[in-house]
Amino acid sequence: MLKKVLIANRGEIAVRVIRACKELGIETVAVFSEADTEALHVKLADEAYCIGPVSSADSYLNMTNIMSVATLTGVDGIHPGYGFLAENADFAEICEACNITFIGPSAWAISQMGTKDVARTTMKKAGVPVVPGSEGIVGTVEEGVKVAETIGYPVIIKATAGGGGKGIRVAANESELKKGISVTQKEAKANFGNEGVYLEKYIEDFRHVEIQVMADNFGNVIHLGERDCTIQRRLQKLVEESPSPAVSEDVRKQMGDAAVRAAAAVNYTGAGTIEFIFDHNTDEFFFMEMNTRIQVEHPVTEMVTGVDLIKEQLLVASGAKLSYTQDEVVFNGWALECRINAENPDKQFMPSPGNISMYLPPGGFGVRVDSGVYPGYTIAPFYDSMVAKLITYAPTRAEAIAKMRRALDEFIIEGVYTTIPFHQKLMSHPVFLEGNFNTKFLETYSLNDHEMV
Amino acid sequence: MLKKVLIANRGEIAVRVIRACKELGIETVAVFSEADTEALHVKLADEAYCIGPVSSADSYLNMTNIMSVATLTGVDGIHPGYGFLAENADFAEICEACNITFIGPSAWAISQMGTKDVARTTMKKAGVPVVPGSEGIVGTVEEGVKVAETIGYPVIIKATAGGGGKGIRVAANESELKKGISVTQKEAKANFGNEGVYLEKYIEDFRHVEIQVMADNFGNVIHLGERDCTIQRRLQKLVEESPSPAVSEDVRKQMGDAAVRAAAAVNYTGAGTIEFIFDHNTDEFFFMEMNTRIQVEHPVTEMVTGVDLIKEQLLVASGAKLSYTQDEVVFNGWALECRINAENPDKQFMPSPGNISMYLPPGGFGVRVDSGVYPGYTIAPFYDSMVAKLITYAPTRAEAIAKMRRALDEFIIEGVYTTIPFHQKLMSHPVFLEGNFNTKFLETYSLNDHEMV
Repeated sequence: MLKKVLIANRGEIAVRVIRACKELGIETVAVFSEADTEALHVKLADEAYCIGPVSSADSYLNMTNIMSVATLTGVDGIHPGYGFLAENADFAEICEACNITFIGPSAWAISQMGTKDVARTTMKKAGVPVVPGSEGIVGTVEEGVKVAETIGYPVIIKATAGGGGKGIRVAANESELKKGISVTQKEAKANFGNEGVYLEKYIEDFRHVEIQVMADNFGNVIHLGERDCTIQRRLQKLVEESPSPAVSEDVRKQMGDAAVRAAAAVNYTGAGTIEFIFDHNTDEFFFMEMNTRIQVEHPVTEMVTGVDLIKEQLLVASGAKLSYTQDEVVFNGWALECRINAENPDKQFMPSPGNISMYLPPGGFGVRVDSGVYPGYTIAPFYDSMVAKLITYAPTRAEAIAKMRRALDEFIIEGVYTTIPFHQKLMSHPVFLEGNFNTKFLETYSLNDHEMV
Repeated sequence: MLKKVLIANRGEIAVRVIRACKELGIETVAVFSEADTEALHVKLADEAYCIGPVSSADSYLNMTNIMSVATLTGVDGIHPGYGFLAENADFAEICEACNITFIGPSAWAISQMGTKDVARTTMKKAGVPVVPGSEGIVGTVEEGVKVAETIGYPVIIKATAGGGGKGIRVAANESELKKGISVTQKEAKANFGNEGVYLEKYIEDFRHVEIQVMADNFGNVIHLGERDCTIQRRLQKLVEESPSPAVSEDVRKQMGDAAVRAAAAVNYTGAGTIEFIFDHNTDEFFFMEMNTRIQVEHPVTEMVTGVDLIKEQLLVASGAKLSYTQDEVVFNGWALECRINAENPDKQFMPSPGNISMYLPPGGFGVRVDSGVYPGYTIAPFYDSMVAKLITYAPTRAEAIAKMRRALDEFIIEGVYTTIPFHQKLMSHPVFLEGNFNTKFLETYSLNDHEMV
């Protein structure tokens, strides 16, 4: 069993990992930038060390400083959280070289999934459906045009080194495609140091549905059902739920099986997520990408399965077999998560850093709050703007939504703008309540002039 | 369905009821004493009205003022919470006379169970085991001596109008009994206006185990398993858990069936609790009393069954059938509740009212907080000293305890003393962890000089 773990992250996910460690009796080491001396994860960890100035590049992405703390404090594991170094294969390799367990998959699995065209090919081989598109990198514009003629417009141009919504461009016709390929190549080279791009059929009317997987070092892989993350703004997820209101028992099984095949194909270990484009008109689904780390929205899966995903990560990294077989994973009830960000939803979600003068999270039955803030805490402008993840859990979707409305109503955050008013409107929007929508929900419906329920 | 409910209570239970009402779309009316103008339940309710000065007798027990608010605001239901008027048969009758639904059992059921010797007789008739003792009231000292000779010393003398640990006295022999009967009679007359006393065999080595029942107006009665409330200090519960570490599947079924018979015997409706003396040496259990209301410790039952007991109270009071059959009640995992009071555990739990200068409840997976306070709130010295109920839920008892330790460690309450340090010691006490103890745990073990785990 791991004895001492360094958490190479900040904010709510650092707090989340510290909590799991404490419950397992694992000592914790926090790291922090000069902007985060008063952060909650620093207060909660057994030890905490400054790793650099405010800039992420010099602190939370500073592998040298992080590994120095790891070595000096004698940790035997490093949890990367999400973001920052979580999907950095080099970092995973460095940990390995230092004889410190990277709590995540192998460097090889990370890089297999991080190179998007390689991942696509691997998935095709593993029998995971992929969106029709090019076979690997598109070498020339002419090759791209040929592919597009076969699969039909519109197509999407994707940088193989991109991800998370960056380095992609849609082309509706040949001239847009020709221009798009060269522009995306140049951008990709500049941003990711890799100009490779590939093409996929552009599916417009779809839901974002993803499958949580968990694997151990003994070849056991299970899935823990789906999360529906269709409510997005500029490819940023805002609300997630499990199960999905659009996924049938049959599709859940197919998608789950495909996700298990996907993870097995790269000898995956630990927690991972296979993201799918789900065509809710045809019940077809296509591999989008794999996130080789824990995700922001993991709590909704925990609520409906009862499985503590972070504990399971720590156990698997400690060399344990999975605590559950696939048959032992049982789905109960409905969970929703609203990301409460310090942003002004009336001003294009402009970040609103500042001092939280008053803070009282909601409580009671079926309400969970994962947060890294406290009354008097100052949200710095340097990192993400998340204040809290508000999760509700109830027997049915309607009850979970009613509970979310109640919890949002009683959530007190003063001193900064938050996205609470946005979520309040969303949670009474008739189309959201009905559950039948795609990723363009927020472009399609105005939250301000619908009839509130 | 009820449309508007007055909550005739304060503190966390008033907040709890308001939350359930909001989730069901029921409007809420709070009432408050002059000491509670800044209370959280006042802020959260749709409407709030002052019903009198700080003294409970003049406010939360002031039926005239409460009924005036109820009538003026046009509520169709009153939830009494626990304590105050919750087990007052007259109040239930007045509600009925005003055509307002009392959210609880009938006045008749309340009084049947409130008169302890009557309850005892009713239970015997219903086939619920009772502790050997007198048949009803002991008329004379001589009669008492005869009964005691039959059942054997020590015996316990109980005022029929008493309850909750008041109006009881133990007698180890005949001379103590003779003196005890007359003293208890006098005290009972002075305190409860009813001098009637009865005798029971005094069982010393037992656990307090109680069964939650729920009944509708159509004759359906179910039980929702047991709660173990063995950790007490001067008959006040401090920690509760569900299930009980001492109750087998077989005993659970017997006890549950007995509790259902007990409730059915008084045509019970709504939520109630049958408290049992559980002899963990013999697996025998005996009826102690029935609490004809929701209890402080109801959340642990909610966690392991998934049933929202307050919503169910509101639904049943609205005329709905029970949402669950007995077979549909499934028990999953383990839940613990620690009562966090503003008391100094190092000074005999002396109340510690005052201003809460900093308040941050713990969060994360499997942690629930039910509270009526907030940062800056001042705990008045006039009512109970509860700050929050901290509930943890996990697959096993050991995990729920580990989670409780972690949650207690991160709970920040500044400005008043709290019982958090007491709970921290208890949660690492080897005997508590082992689970084998009786109601004398705190008299038997010092929490200060045991080996901490």
